[in-house]
Amino acid sequence: MTRLNPDALRLYLVTDQSLVRGRPLADVVAAAVQGGVSCVQLREKNLGTRDFLAQALMLKKLLAPHRVPLVINDRIDIALACGAEGVHLGQSDLPVTEARRLLPPEVFIGWSVESMDEVLQSVALPLDSLDYLGVSPIFATPTKTDIGNAWGLGGLARVRAATRLPLVAIGGIHAGNARQVLQAGADGLAVVSALCAADDPQAAAAGIRAMCDQELTARRTAND
Amino acid sequence: MTRLNPDALRLYLVTDQSLVRGRPLADVVAAAVQGGVSCVQLREKNLGTRDFLAQALMLKKLLAPHRVPLVINDRIDIALACGAEGVHLGQSDLPVTEARRLLPPEVFIGWSVESMDEVLQSVALPLDSLDYLGVSPIFATPTKTDIGNAWGLGGLARVRAATRLPLVAIGGIHAGNARQVLQAGADGLAVVSALCAADDPQAAAAGIRAMCDQELTARRTAND
Repeated sequence: MTRLNPDALRLYLVTDQSLVRGRPLADVVAAAVQGGVSCVQLREKNLGTRDFLAQALMLKKLLAPHRVPLVINDRIDIALACGAEGVHLGQSDLPVTEARRLLPPEVFIGWSVESMDEVLQSVALPLDSLDYLGVSPIFATPTKTDIGNAWGLGGLARVRAATRLPLVAIGGIHAGNARQVLQAGADGLAVVSALCAADDPQAAAAGIRAMCDQELTARRTAND
Repeated sequence: MTRLNPDALRLYLVTDQSLVRGRPLADVVAAAVQGGVSCVQLREKNLGTRDFLAQALMLKKLLAPHRVPLVINDRIDIALACGAEGVHLGQSDLPVTEARRLLPPEVFIGWSVESMDEVLQSVALPLDSLDYLGVSPIFATPTKTDIGNAWGLGGLARVRAATRLPLVAIGGIHAGNARQVLQAGADGLAVVSALCAADDPQAAAAGIRAMCDQELTARRTAND
C-alpha cells in the first residue's frame, strides 16, 4: 500500500482541546511538529460540523508544508471536505468497509482495536481496506475510563503476533514508557496529554521522537 | 431540477427522539407516514456515528416502500452511507457549496435560513446547488430558544417574494396555524412536536396533510 508510509506513524499526535491549557491548538501542534510529530489526528467530539471543518482546514494548512499527514477522527464528511490524508475510526464510528467505500482510495484508514476479537475482525477485512491499527488503550488513562481492560505490553505483543498491519499504540504513553511500548511491537506511538499538556510541546515531542527513531532503526537492523 | 418534486415537501416530519414519549421512533414515523407525511428528516445531535447510521438505515427501509424521501440533518457522511435522498443543512453545518461538492448530483439539499441576509445568500448560490429553503423558525418554540427572532407570517411572505426556491416552514407549526402558514407562501410544513409527541401521529398527520393538499391545490388553481 503506497497511501501510507508507516514511518509517518512514528510519533502520532492526537489533539485534545481540553488539554492545551488555554493555548491555541495551532501553536501546540506547530511546536509538536517542530519537535518531530509525524502525523496529527484531529479529534473533536463537541464541535458543530462547521467549526470542526474550520479546525481541520487550519491544521491542513499548518501541516502541509511539513508533509505531516492530517487524520480526521470519525467524521468522513470532514475528512472529505478538508482533503485529509487519513481517517481514524473507533468502535462507535462507521464500520471500516463503509468508510472505505465512501473515501477516495488514496485516503488511509486506521481503526482502534480494544479486544483480540476486534483484531481478528481486522485481519478478516478485505485486503487494502485498512492501513493501521490503533491498539487502545495500552495503559489505563484518566480520560479513557469508559474503556474496558488495558492491553498492557503483553497484550500489545499478542496483537503484534496476530497481524501484519502497522500498529499505533495509544493510551497512557509518555517519555517514561515509550521505549518499552516500541519494544513490545508498536510501529508508532500515539500521544495525547504528554504532548498537548506539555509545558514545552516541542521538547516533549523531540524526546519521544528520538526514542522512536532509535528503537525502529534498531529493529530494522535486527531484521536485516 | 428533477431530483426533488416539491410535492414531497408538503408535510415534512422532523424527528426528535426526545419527544416520542418512549415509543419506538420507527412506530411514530410509520404511523405519521400512514397519515400522509411526505418527507422525513432524521435529526440526531447526540448519537455516535454508528448509532446514527443504524437509525438512518432503519428509516430508509421503512420509508422506501412508500417512496417517502429520507433527509439527513447535517451529516453528509451518514447521508452517503445510508443512501438518503436529501440532506438538510443548518447554519452551523457544512456550507451548501461544500456539501454539494461531496454529494452525488441526485441528492437534494435544503438549507435553514434564519434571516433575510441568509435568504439573499441562498439566492446568490450557483443554480442547482440548493433545492429548498427551511424558513426557521416561523413561530417561537420552547425547543428553539437559541434562535433570534421568529419570522412570523409576514417574514415568511417576504421570503416568498425574495426567492423562487420551494419553502418549507418550520417552528411552532401545528393544525391550528398550518393553513395560515400555507397561505403566507409555504410550499410545505415541517412539523416536529405536533407529530412526534401526538397521541395519534397518524391522525395528526392526516389532519395537517389534508390542509396542505387543499391549500396547495387552491393555489395551483389560482395560478392557472
